[in-house]
Amino acid sequence: MDFLKSYAVLFEEKLQNLNFPQKPETLYDPQRYILQNGGKRIRPILTLISCGLCGSSAERAIPAALAVELLHNFTLIHDDIMDQADSRRGEPSVHKKWDTATAILAGDSMFTHSMLQLQNLPDDVNHKQISHIFLNAVNVVCEGQAMDMEFESRSDVTVEEYHKMIAGKTGALISAAMQMGGMCANASEQHLDQLSIIGESLGLAFQIQDDWLDVVADPDTFGKRKAGDIYEGKKTFLMLTALERCSENEREKITACLADKPLSSKEVGEIISLFESCNVISDTRKHFLKAYNRAEKALQQFGESNYKQDLQQLIKFLKNRES
Amino acid sequence: MDFLKSYAVLFEEKLQNLNFPQKPETLYDPQRYILQNGGKRIRPILTLISCGLCGSSAERAIPAALAVELLHNFTLIHDDIMDQADSRRGEPSVHKKWDTATAILAGDSMFTHSMLQLQNLPDDVNHKQISHIFLNAVNVVCEGQAMDMEFESRSDVTVEEYHKMIAGKTGALISAAMQMGGMCANASEQHLDQLSIIGESLGLAFQIQDDWLDVVADPDTFGKRKAGDIYEGKKTFLMLTALERCSENEREKITACLADKPLSSKEVGEIISLFESCNVISDTRKHFLKAYNRAEKALQQFGESNYKQDLQQLIKFLKNRES
Repeated sequence: MDFLKSYAVLFEEKLQNLNFPQKPETLYDPQRYILQNGGKRIRPILTLISCGLCGSSAERAIPAALAVELLHNFTLIHDDIMDQADSRRGEPSVHKKWDTATAILAGDSMFTHSMLQLQNLPDDVNHKQISHIFLNAVNVVCEGQAMDMEFESRSDVTVEEYHKMIAGKTGALISAAMQMGGMCANASEQHLDQLSIIGESLGLAFQIQDDWLDVVADPDTFGKRKAGDIYEGKKTFLMLTALERCSENEREKITACLADKPLSSKEVGEIISLFESCNVISDTRKHFLKAYNRAEKALQQFGESNYKQDLQQLIKFLKNRES
Repeated sequence: MDFLKSYAVLFEEKLQNLNFPQKPETLYDPQRYILQNGGKRIRPILTLISCGLCGSSAERAIPAALAVELLHNFTLIHDDIMDQADSRRGEPSVHKKWDTATAILAGDSMFTHSMLQLQNLPDDVNHKQISHIFLNAVNVVCEGQAMDMEFESRSDVTVEEYHKMIAGKTGALISAAMQMGGMCANASEQHLDQLSIIGESLGLAFQIQDDWLDVVADPDTFGKRKAGDIYEGKKTFLMLTALERCSENEREKITACLADKPLSSKEVGEIISLFESCNVISDTRKHFLKAYNRAEKALQQFGESNYKQDLQQLIKFLKNRES
């Protein structure tokens, strides 16, 4: 995504210059570690672009962008403990490299530092309002994560509930990231609403597209095992849609498969056939494209600028991504 | 502490009326659970008294007091995971009643709700300033907890480091609780400084007194096993002071005992004798009384009021406590 390079370079420099204290080492080393371990920095870049979209320079929003990225990394540290994920981006996760206690505390500290970043915003930014947007988003992220964990032991999850869950886990922070960028430019309520719609739509579209790519993408490009989510018995958008559309017999059969993970190749093949016969794959594509279109339409409400072009290009890129 | 009853009743009503959402249950049930499980509510009461001390009604500081108590309970949930503590106040700890993942997430959510409380403060309270004091305190609490965990595997902890650790784990939040109360009354910088001194001193005194009571208190009144900290090989203020004062031979002997926990009755008896021969017990008492006196002296800087009398009475009560 070369068109985002100038934002990425600007942001990365600020992020790597954060200068966490040297001690206590067990508190700050894990935070340095996860921040040095890369990441696409999509959320903070959206904060910077949103500030520009609303008529200010992107630089004004740097503290908000840092808050968003620190928050995101805090959730990664804690989520990896909760999901018992041993690695992230090819490196050991924090709780594996250190231990669970250290990872919990490093995450708590990172959340605190994330909020403290908002202290560095320009004086004319409404601190109370921007904190409110940010914290409400964190709250919705927590609710989304709780729903996701509850779904694992439930066999009656609906597509509607799934929407609510990903709106929390993915959409809320992206939406807040964009609104916060707008607030750094003292944007109008109307523009903040549009930014919120763009963020929500992008989060929803991205997540559902991820579920779809699991089934349709070339594994070499996508970097994950083909139909890996199905093998793991995950309740993806496709799976839940299929469960709502199929016959009672088929539903019972799938539910039995999901209760006995991992699934066999034969079971996975049967489920993909069912997806096809119920039009789940093509309808899922329509569904996430609709969300991307909603984002594009909301973006039209902003005046012309390089920022607008960059965001248009980003949405186009995401829409057509194969990995 | 009957003289605190009116504050306690007022605060408890507000706390129990917080109305967390019903769902997701696994996110909010643990938060309701820990808040219903009692606690002395000393920190939020200090917030209310501090607001009164600075000339406003205590009620103005209710949102700040709620923020402080929610924050405290969030740290309890996470600390219990880190310390592998199975119970709290006679009930199973959150991660025992549910599981570690649920407890991590419930804590994160409670921290978020704690910060969100500050949104409810009166409009003339400086939101940015009060957030700053609060978040800086949380940061220092995290650092104190990290130091405490690091101490466990170290045999060269100094009394100075111990001071810094308890200033973080106990002092920082009490100090912030009192300053936040003052800020709700738009107190002067000078008064905020005095509140900070009172809070820090009370935190330090209380913690060192706790270490002292472990050795001198009547176990029936104190509610804990006599010298329980020594049996567990804890690096208390008394232990670290003794290690700094004793001969090299004695130091080696104690270090060997601490490396092989729990200690035997014979070892504990020998360590108590060493405490006595090095004047550690009497000097520790002098040390925490000095901190209480510092708090009393700072309190003299405030004008006369019922709030001042209540705080004087509280300090006197704490000074003389036997449990």
